[in-house]
Amino acid sequence: MTADTGTEHKAGWRERLYIIIFEADTPAGKAFDVALLWSILISVVLVMLDSVASMRARYGLAMYTAEWAFTLLFTVEYLLRLATVRDPLRYARSFYGVVDLLAIVPTYLSLLVPGAQALLVVRALRLLRVFRVLKLTRYLTEARLLYLAMFASARKVAVFLYTVLMLVIIVGTLIYLVEGGNPGFESIPHCIYWAIVTVTTVGYGDVVPLTPLGKALASVGMVLGYGIIAVPTGIVTVEMARAFRTSDLSTRACHDCGRGGHDLDARHCKHCGAGLERSDDDES
Amino acid sequence: MTADTGTEHKAGWRERLYIIIFEADTPAGKAFDVALLWSILISVVLVMLDSVASMRARYGLAMYTAEWAFTLLFTVEYLLRLATVRDPLRYARSFYGVVDLLAIVPTYLSLLVPGAQALLVVRALRLLRVFRVLKLTRYLTEARLLYLAMFASARKVAVFLYTVLMLVIIVGTLIYLVEGGNPGFESIPHCIYWAIVTVTTVGYGDVVPLTPLGKALASVGMVLGYGIIAVPTGIVTVEMARAFRTSDLSTRACHDCGRGGHDLDARHCKHCGAGLERSDDDES
Amino acid sequence: MTADTGTEHKAGWRERLYIIIFEADTPAGKAFDVALLWSILISVVLVMLDSVASMRARYGLAMYTAEWAFTLLFTVEYLLRLATVRDPLRYARSFYGVVDLLAIVPTYLSLLVPGAQALLVVRALRLLRVFRVLKLTRYLTEARLLYLAMFASARKVAVFLYTVLMLVIIVGTLIYLVEGGNPGFESIPHCIYWAIVTVTTVGYGDVVPLTPLGKALASVGMVLGYGIIAVPTGIVTVEMARAFRTSDLSTRACHDCGRGGHDLDARHCKHCGAGLERSDDDES
Amino acid sequence: MTADTGTEHKAGWRERLYIIIFEADTPAGKAFDVALLWSILISVVLVMLDSVASMRARYGLAMYTAEWAFTLLFTVEYLLRLATVRDPLRYARSFYGVVDLLAIVPTYLSLLVPGAQALLVVRALRLLRVFRVLKLTRYLTEARLLYLAMFASARKVAVFLYTVLMLVIIVGTLIYLVEGGNPGFESIPHCIYWAIVTVTTVGYGDVVPLTPLGKALASVGMVLGYGIIAVPTGIVTVEMARAFRTSDLSTRACHDCGRGGHDLDARHCKHCGAGLERSDDDES
Repeated sequence: MTADTGTEHKAGWRERLYIIIFEADTPAGKAFDVALLWSILISVVLVMLDSVASMRARYGLAMYTAEWAFTLLFTVEYLLRLATVRDPLRYARSFYGVVDLLAIVPTYLSLLVPGAQALLVVRALRLLRVFRVLKLTRYLTEARLLYLAMFASARKVAVFLYTVLMLVIIVGTLIYLVEGGNPGFESIPHCIYWAIVTVTTVGYGDVVPLTPLGKALASVGMVLGYGIIAVPTGIVTVEMARAFRTSDLSTRACHDCGRGGHDLDARHCKHCGAGLERSDDDES
Repeated sequence: MTADTGTEHKAGWRERLYIIIFEADTPAGKAFDVALLWSILISVVLVMLDSVASMRARYGLAMYTAEWAFTLLFTVEYLLRLATVRDPLRYARSFYGVVDLLAIVPTYLSLLVPGAQALLVVRALRLLRVFRVLKLTRYLTEARLLYLAMFASARKVAVFLYTVLMLVIIVGTLIYLVEGGNPGFESIPHCIYWAIVTVTTVGYGDVVPLTPLGKALASVGMVLGYGIIAVPTGIVTVEMARAFRTSDLSTRACHDCGRGGHDLDARHCKHCGAGLERSDDDES
Repeated sequence: MTADTGTEHKAGWRERLYIIIFEADTPAGKAFDVALLWSILISVVLVMLDSVASMRARYGLAMYTAEWAFTLLFTVEYLLRLATVRDPLRYARSFYGVVDLLAIVPTYLSLLVPGAQALLVVRALRLLRVFRVLKLTRYLTEARLLYLAMFASARKVAVFLYTVLMLVIIVGTLIYLVEGGNPGFESIPHCIYWAIVTVTTVGYGDVVPLTPLGKALASVGMVLGYGIIAVPTGIVTVEMARAFRTSDLSTRACHDCGRGGHDLDARHCKHCGAGLERSDDDES
Repeated sequence: MTADTGTEHKAGWRERLYIIIFEADTPAGKAFDVALLWSILISVVLVMLDSVASMRARYGLAMYTAEWAFTLLFTVEYLLRLATVRDPLRYARSFYGVVDLLAIVPTYLSLLVPGAQALLVVRALRLLRVFRVLKLTRYLTEARLLYLAMFASARKVAVFLYTVLMLVIIVGTLIYLVEGGNPGFESIPHCIYWAIVTVTTVGYGDVVPLTPLGKALASVGMVLGYGIIAVPTGIVTVEMARAFRTSDLSTRACHDCGRGGHDLDARHCKHCGAGLERSDDDES
């Protein structure tokens, strides 16, 4: 930003708007973000309340008006983002660009698709604005490290999910052989649904085995599901320990002996005693 | 305490009461604490039994009397704490000060708010005395390290809770689109409640999806909820390993600057660079 | 045993029986242990099947006979243990001594307490013989390290259990204020039972909140219960890592540089390259 | 393969087929594997849909034909594997050999066992072809490390499972003493099934304790089950940390003895004592 001060006269308003809309370091930018946050929260709560029959009967018109007010507000915000960002196409195709668009499109679609029988579909489309909430993620910086650890262990988690899938298919098929035809065990897909409910220890209880063999098989599925959770936990814990250790330590190295692994509050090298410059990152 | 021996004659009884009430090192202090502990336990059990209709029918008067006896006892204790502590205002505003007050107020309030229809509310207020139980925490020293590890990972746990909230809102909204109108899926708030019951693997079974698509969506929510628990577990495990490791290391202190927290393989103080003698680490 | 070879003539049969009964290194001792193991397993299965009405109707007499045969067998075994062990009193008061006695007493008690109405109680006492199964633990050596890690973290786990207890009492009391009187929420003890079912994510679904506020409170309880499991997991993981690391490494130190932390398969010091003598423990 | 280029003329087609069928490095081998993968997936989905009554009513003949087409396809594939592999007997007895055979046998068995009343049994046998899915495992390389960590902790997990079994037997027996005769608590096996459902936190809710003592006992079982999951999680996490650490280290090998598995801070080979150059550890 300080690099192109020569063209400040022309791009001035865009630059200033950009700082307000996309950044949160200036007072104006912070105020904009907080206002936007509250608007998102209120509009999401409105969409939820709008689905409650008794609420719509009483406050239907007010909620309809507020709905349109928020949609226009977010439309203006979306256009301003497009106008002020340096690479509008890249923003439009980014995750937040798509979410920002999805947050306003359903309301407009409800105009284009009128008619009695379409009402339900339109209401359904409007619900997608719940994704507006996803914008909130932007305001959390701590999340990056967590998601990094998750993505680092993505392949191992995939192996785990595959194992669970196999377990659920096999338990579901075996229970079909044992309980097939009893209520809730009509077909293999039904049985696999039951197996998922059982192995994940959710246990609705809407479908339960009735025969002794079925109960024995269910018991095996329960104990396996109960114990197998240890696997993703182990994976994520190990990856997290690695990610946090790296983020804590790896930044600084001693200038005298070149060795690293120093704590964040270390002022001297623990190996040779030479002074270390202070690290700037002040994480809690 | 040894510093103000000059004013011992005046402050003598306050000082002695303070040691009995607030500390547990002397025989009298220990006896006071144990007696208090039993009083709290018995009074909490009484409040609980008082809510059982058959118990109140038989022992109503006895429990009412005991209730007032305990309230008066705890009132005297609260006043003595206020009288003997050095900074009464700071105690009154501290966590335990507020809890001690909340433990006696409801019974008095039941006198000020008489009348038939208010009876239920009064009984409700009296239940707050259950918080009396929180006093027990004071007697556990091991807890500090645990809560420290929890607070150190508070921001990461917040990110996790936010992720769960997002997951629950999205799964709840999608199930509303799929099952909306079926019993238990009347509105988005209802659907989000169902999503929480499902994702946390509680699975009451009072509300279950009926359509194939709803069951498929529920299965995805279950597997996600089943696997995502690995994240807070990983966070807390890593933080705990760090907190305990720190508590392991703190045995050695630098002879120059007196500060601790050195790693087991550290040869120089990380604060001032002075040499450290080798640790004879006798970890439990 | 090799120390008192002088008195071998006198104590010969006791010594030989002791080795057969208490140890499993000789062929005879191994055969005895395997036979005992099978007897325990069969007698436990018999006790279980005896409780099934249709089984008792058909095989009642056979099971009664087998019951007495096993009881006599285990009585002889118990007396032999008392006779051959060096310190009979210490054995009788040890965990296994008590379990061995509890495994035979109920059958004899069923003779002393005759009569129609006492039959149920007697049957109940006989069920205690299920503890006979506990003897199996003796045959697992790996268990020691695990239980050691558990006991090392016992105090921290106690703090966790106390936190869960507090959480359950508070959630139970609040739900009583909100749902009090609805089916299943009749009294605070009932509500605490519901809170335990909810917070541990068991979720029977026999008692569910009906009001919006109750559902909101239940949601908070579920998320807390869902997340708080991370705490004991973290504690046990950290303690286990410590116990296993200690058992893996701490035994050997380099004779040249005196430093430890060597892997089990290390033949040379990783710090200075000097030779290490081989460790004898061949754990997997 | 490059070693026996002298006999390439004779074994040429077998060698080429072997590379296509068993390996996935050449374009042809990759295409074969992807085609096989899709065939397996489609055939498994067909078996599942075949169990849905409405699907079979409409597409019965088409699914029957596709079933036989897939069976013939997999038969040819199995025979080709037997023909091209160097040691057919070893392949036939390997895990994948048995699974490959099990994936085709049930369809042929349905011809040999005709008749109206046998139809159900035959359909059951056909379901075993779901194991065809197990072939998918071959395509995941990441899995090996995970299963290695699991097998390394197999004995410790066995101790855990034994503890859970004991807990479930004791809780089940005690609940039989308390609730025996109430619906769902008819016999000890029934009670143990209930205990498994409770301790694993599945909680169907089809069987719930009705007496206060039963509820208290159930609460203890729930809290134990809720907390005890920390044990396998701890075990697997520690084993995984060890397995992954080992996989991290294996990049460096000793130049003298060629063996790996050195720690990151190792300066000398732990096997032969030769010096190691510093690792440029580029962990993922």
